[in-house]
Amino acid sequence: MTKVRTAFQGEPGAFSQEAVRQLLGDRATVAPFQRFDEVFRALSDKTVDAAVIPIENTLAGSVHENYDHLLEYDVRIVAETNVRIVHNLIARPGVRFRDIRRVFSHPVALNQCLDFFSSNPGIEKVPYYDTAGSVKMIAGEKLDDAAAIASSIAASIYGGHILRRSIEDDRRNYTRFFLLRRAKEVPRRGAGGEHWKTSLVFTTRNTPGALFRAISAFALRDLNLTKIESRPLRGKPWEYLFYVDFLGREDEERARNALNHLRELADFLRVLGCYPRGE
Amino acid sequence: MTKVRTAFQGEPGAFSQEAVRQLLGDRATVAPFQRFDEVFRALSDKTVDAAVIPIENTLAGSVHENYDHLLEYDVRIVAETNVRIVHNLIARPGVRFRDIRRVFSHPVALNQCLDFFSSNPGIEKVPYYDTAGSVKMIAGEKLDDAAAIASSIAASIYGGHILRRSIEDDRRNYTRFFLLRRAKEVPRRGAGGEHWKTSLVFTTRNTPGALFRAISAFALRDLNLTKIESRPLRGKPWEYLFYVDFLGREDEERARNALNHLRELADFLRVLGCYPRGE
Repeated sequence: MTKVRTAFQGEPGAFSQEAVRQLLGDRATVAPFQRFDEVFRALSDKTVDAAVIPIENTLAGSVHENYDHLLEYDVRIVAETNVRIVHNLIARPGVRFRDIRRVFSHPVALNQCLDFFSSNPGIEKVPYYDTAGSVKMIAGEKLDDAAAIASSIAASIYGGHILRRSIEDDRRNYTRFFLLRRAKEVPRRGAGGEHWKTSLVFTTRNTPGALFRAISAFALRDLNLTKIESRPLRGKPWEYLFYVDFLGREDEERARNALNHLRELADFLRVLGCYPRGE
Repeated sequence: MTKVRTAFQGEPGAFSQEAVRQLLGDRATVAPFQRFDEVFRALSDKTVDAAVIPIENTLAGSVHENYDHLLEYDVRIVAETNVRIVHNLIARPGVRFRDIRRVFSHPVALNQCLDFFSSNPGIEKVPYYDTAGSVKMIAGEKLDDAAAIASSIAASIYGGHILRRSIEDDRRNYTRFFLLRRAKEVPRRGAGGEHWKTSLVFTTRNTPGALFRAISAFALRDLNLTKIESRPLRGKPWEYLFYVDFLGREDEERARNALNHLRELADFLRVLGCYPRGE
């Protein structure tokens, strides 16, 4: 069986790698990149077959940079999944909790463990570019006064020891990931199935009631929006792009009618993907 | 005349200080804080009389953390202003452009000068906590191979020399700031005037068409929405708070009717402020 070479952002052991596993299982081989734009470029230029990107977190909100890239690159969303984010305090083997003076991790992860830092005022938060990368670094640099916050996979990849499990403030901490393919290689009609989502982006004329009329295209056909997100429109201060997800398949009749209706109202409209709804 | 003691986030010379000048002129004395939550706390506990916070940038989008704080603290928006963001490359006097190997600044500022870094591949971007703070640091540490990206005010405050003016990729780069006061000290009815905005936040029941019905409260009364923003609702994965701005005064009849209508539909509604529209 040919493996699906799949790009993600972060070091091996990042939460994105867990998303790859949930989405593709052992059909995937992974290709880590440092930045999100490198992930999108690798997919576009056929360095990889697929890409997995985070799009929103239930605590931190949307990953806005990736909304911008979805518009910039000719890719399609073909699946979504939700990963529960469990943050562990990881140090080198032999390092004890009372030795820890500094904790390295991605700023979002540090901010999701504030109760831990309040209870341990002698420990300093140090922002680092990646969760798993911070485990790799403390292992590589042989730091004996430091720990990292990352996934348990990261601990096992870099031979770290978990000192405290699940130190996140809020356990209802999930990240939603998209699986992306090159647009030209995705058939427009998905297989059957009951629970589908469609993601799209549009702009409206800047007139009173424009957004109301745009989303009426869905409401009048009982299509449920699960997400609406605005992003600034580059070059037009105080105008916005709207990213919308609705429950339904792009090719069913009422969805087709809604999209045609929205096309009458929108200056610009693009469907970003139609995919089975994640758990 | 009693001065208005005004908190902002960042070092002296931050763009927020320019916003304070635009909003209050020489009626203000400034109180800089490192973090946004410290700014909100200083206003709440009466350490200061007012606070100025950035809420959105025409390129980077909303400052989501501040949307969260607006809900958390009992404050009111009493004015808004837009500041054009001009990024300058600033070094110590005597340091020449060809000496520069590293450029420090806030990550958002670094990302708004990507053309400059593409044209100068030998120069490394180094993320720092603040734009003006990066000028202060290269001056304090006497760095001779480094520059900072910040405002011209920051250059003059810390005795920096501007090597390149206006290196931002896109000149249509504006940040919108709010002036905040403690809610209890703000009269609910503003003075007269034609052009007002009202900001509010609400949640809807998670049912089909709920957002559509919510914004119909405005559309049916020809009240123009200028902004809609969603933020995750803490503790309820995949449910959202909506932040809305509309053109109009909270106390005019059709706005009162719209707010009453929205109250019927929303689980939660709070008006964050009513203020004269910025330039």
